[in-house]
Amino acid sequence: MSNYHPLTEAQAIAYARQIPQLFQPGSELSSQEIGDGNLNLVFRITEAGTGKSIIIKQALPYAKVVGESWPLTLDRARIESEALMIEEALCPDLVPHVYAYDADLALTVMEDLSDHVIMRRGLIERNQYPLFAEHIGRFLAHTLFFTSDLGKNQQEKKLQQGRFINPELCKITEDLIFDDPYRNSDNNNIEAHIRDAAEALWNDSELHLEVAILRNKFLTQSQALLHGDLHTGSIFIKPDSTKVIDPEFAYYGPMGFDIGAVLANLLLNYASQEGWSQDEESRSAYRAYLIQTVKDVWTHFEANFRALWNERGVDRVFATPGYQDYFVANLLRDTVGFTGAKMVRRVVGLAHVADIDKIEDAAARERAQRLALRIGTIAIRTNRQVNSIDELIALATQAVERGFAL
Amino acid sequence: MSNYHPLTEAQAIAYARQIPQLFQPGSELSSQEIGDGNLNLVFRITEAGTGKSIIIKQALPYAKVVGESWPLTLDRARIESEALMIEEALCPDLVPHVYAYDADLALTVMEDLSDHVIMRRGLIERNQYPLFAEHIGRFLAHTLFFTSDLGKNQQEKKLQQGRFINPELCKITEDLIFDDPYRNSDNNNIEAHIRDAAEALWNDSELHLEVAILRNKFLTQSQALLHGDLHTGSIFIKPDSTKVIDPEFAYYGPMGFDIGAVLANLLLNYASQEGWSQDEESRSAYRAYLIQTVKDVWTHFEANFRALWNERGVDRVFATPGYQDYFVANLLRDTVGFTGAKMVRRVVGLAHVADIDKIEDAAARERAQRLALRIGTIAIRTNRQVNSIDELIALATQAVERGFAL
Repeated sequence: MSNYHPLTEAQAIAYARQIPQLFQPGSELSSQEIGDGNLNLVFRITEAGTGKSIIIKQALPYAKVVGESWPLTLDRARIESEALMIEEALCPDLVPHVYAYDADLALTVMEDLSDHVIMRRGLIERNQYPLFAEHIGRFLAHTLFFTSDLGKNQQEKKLQQGRFINPELCKITEDLIFDDPYRNSDNNNIEAHIRDAAEALWNDSELHLEVAILRNKFLTQSQALLHGDLHTGSIFIKPDSTKVIDPEFAYYGPMGFDIGAVLANLLLNYASQEGWSQDEESRSAYRAYLIQTVKDVWTHFEANFRALWNERGVDRVFATPGYQDYFVANLLRDTVGFTGAKMVRRVVGLAHVADIDKIEDAAARERAQRLALRIGTIAIRTNRQVNSIDELIALATQAVERGFAL
Repeated sequence: MSNYHPLTEAQAIAYARQIPQLFQPGSELSSQEIGDGNLNLVFRITEAGTGKSIIIKQALPYAKVVGESWPLTLDRARIESEALMIEEALCPDLVPHVYAYDADLALTVMEDLSDHVIMRRGLIERNQYPLFAEHIGRFLAHTLFFTSDLGKNQQEKKLQQGRFINPELCKITEDLIFDDPYRNSDNNNIEAHIRDAAEALWNDSELHLEVAILRNKFLTQSQALLHGDLHTGSIFIKPDSTKVIDPEFAYYGPMGFDIGAVLANLLLNYASQEGWSQDEESRSAYRAYLIQTVKDVWTHFEANFRALWNERGVDRVFATPGYQDYFVANLLRDTVGFTGAKMVRRVVGLAHVADIDKIEDAAARERAQRLALRIGTIAIRTNRQVNSIDELIALATQAVERGFAL
C-alpha cells in the first residue's frame, strides 16, 4: 500500500479520466467530495455534457466515531469491492456496478446511485417501498445460499472464506454489538433518562447467556459470506429499485446475522414511530406497513432460499429429508436473536439510529428507546424457542399494546 | 514449489547434514526410507557414532489409497509443520519436536520417535497405557482451548484460521466420513458378509439427518484448530510417553471432531475384541480397560478444559454464568456424534482399521464389524440427547451384552 495517498477532488477527476470507456475523452468533469469523512472519501465525478456520473469511494486509514479516531485497515476497500462483485454476479439488479478497484489507492469506482435515497431516511419520512421485501429477500437468499456449502462447491467456499478473513471490522461488531451494551463500557452512549434500562441490561444474567451464545455464533459459525452491516443505512432505495451498498464488514459468518440486521432496522423504525408527531391512525398504518414488511422479508427470503436449495443445491448430503426444515428452523431462531441484539445496541451502544435519535421531544424519544429495548431484549431472550416469524411480529405488536412503565 | 523433487536416501543424508547443530560435522550418517509410500516419504537418518536419529518427512504430490492415485497438495507439509509447532508450544511433551521445515521440498525435519510404537498396534497387542488418558485429555484441552476464541485473541484466531484453510484434505473427510458410508458409493469397502448392514445404513433416513447435521458442523463450525485426523494411528506411545503426530488434516473446525476421533478408535478396538482369541475373562478385562479409558479421556479433557476456561480465558463475555456449562454440554454431544461417524466409516468406508480387519476368523471379524456399526449408529442417532459420557459408555457396553443377530 506504499503508493497510498488520499485523493484531492482534482486527483479524483484525473483518476476517473484514465478509466477506459467511462467518460468521453477530453470532456469536462467535475468532482464533489460527498462523504462524511469518518471512514472514507466519497467523490462524485460528473460529466458536464452528458450528466453521467460515477462514484469513487476511497478508504481512509482511520475511523472516526464520536470524535475518537483509530487506525483501520485499508484492506477493507478490497473486501468491499470483492464482495460487491460477488453480490453483483448473484443479484445484478440489487447492488451498484463496480467499474474498477485499485488496491494501491484502496478505492473502488462504482455506479452513482444518487437517484436513490438512503432507506433509513426514506423510512423516517414514512415512505413505503412495496418492492423492498421481495428485493431484499431475494438478495439475502441468493447471496447467502450461493456462498455457503449449500450452493457453492465446499472447496471453493473454503478458498473464498480465506479471502474474507476480516479481523478488524469483525472486532467492531464483536465489541459494539455483543459486548459493550451488556456492561458499563465507555463505548456506550446512553441517554440519562434510560440509564435504569441500561443498568437492567448489565444485570440480566439470563440475557447475557443468550448474548454469549449469539456472540459465539458470530465468532465461529462460518455459514456464508455475509454483508456484515446490512442496516437501512447500507441500502439505497427508490420505489422501483433497491441497491445494497457498503459491504466492508463482509466475512464468513452466520446467515441469520444479515437477515436480523434488516429486520432489526425495520423494527427500530417501528419503535421510533412513538416519537414522530402524527395522528394515531397514520402511526398505526405505518407500523402495520413495517410489520408486514418484516414478515414479507422473511417470507420472501425463505421461499427463495428453499427454492434455491431444491433446484440449485450442490450438496447431495444436504438433500437428506428433514435437513432443510431443520436448517431453516434454526436459521429463523438465529435471525430473531440477531434482530434483538442489533436493536439493543442501537439504543444504548456507541452507534445509534437517526430514526430514534432525531426525535426532538425527549419524552417521546424515551418511549421509542424503551420500546426498542423491550422488543430487542424479548427477541434475544426467546430466540431459541421461536418457531415462526409470526412470533417475532407478535412480540413487537404486543410490546406496543402493553404500553410503558416509565 | 518449483524446486520440489522427491529426495533419494543419499539426498536425505545431505539435507540433514546441512541443518545446524543436528549432527557432528563429518560424522557417518545412514538413511532408511521407512514410509509406506502412499502419501509421504519418511527417512530416518541415524548418526553411527552417537546413535542419534531424526526423521525427514517429505510430502509426495499424490495420494495412493487402495491402488488408486490422485494429486494432493504439497501445502499439507506446511500445514503439518505449522500445526506441530503450534501444538508443541502448547504441549511440549506431547508432540515430536520440529527441527526445520522446507517449503520448497515440502518436508519437515523432526524428532525420531522410534522408541515409541503406533498406538493402534499397541492396542491390538492388548497393551495398557495408564498415562494415555491424562496425556491426550490434556493435549485436547490445551490445543482446542488455546486456538479457539476462548483462549486466543479473536483477531489473532481469525488470522491463524486463514493459514489453515485446508480444502483438499478436508474434502477427504467430507466424502469418506460424512457421505460415502451412507450411500452405495464406489469408494466404500464393504465385506460381503455385512452387506445387509451397509444397505441398512443407506436406507436409514433418521441416521442420514443426524449425519447431515454433523457434516454441516464439520463444514461450518470454526471453533478451534483441529488435528483433524486424531486416530490411534496418529499417536506414538510407550508407557511413559504419548506423542501426537501427522496433523496434516489440521483446519479450524468443531472441537468434538478431534475428541470423537480418539474415543471412536478406542471403541473400534473395543469392538475388535470379539475377534482376538483369548479367554472371556481377559477379553472382558481389556474391554473394561478400554471403556475406562474412554471415560477418562473425556474426564481429563473436561477437567483441563474447564480449568483453562476459568483461569486462562481471554474473553469477558464467555465468563457469563451458565455459558461454560452450555458449551461443554454441546461439546459432549458433538463428541458422541463424531465418535459414531468415525466408527461407521471404519467398517464400511474406504479406510478400515487393522484392529478389525486383521482378525483372521471371518465370523469373528463379522461380529466385530457389526458391533462397531451398532455402537457407531446408536452414537450418531442419540448424540443430540446425550448428557453424560456415561451414556456413551452404557451404549457401548449394552451393545456387547445384547449380542448379535447375525
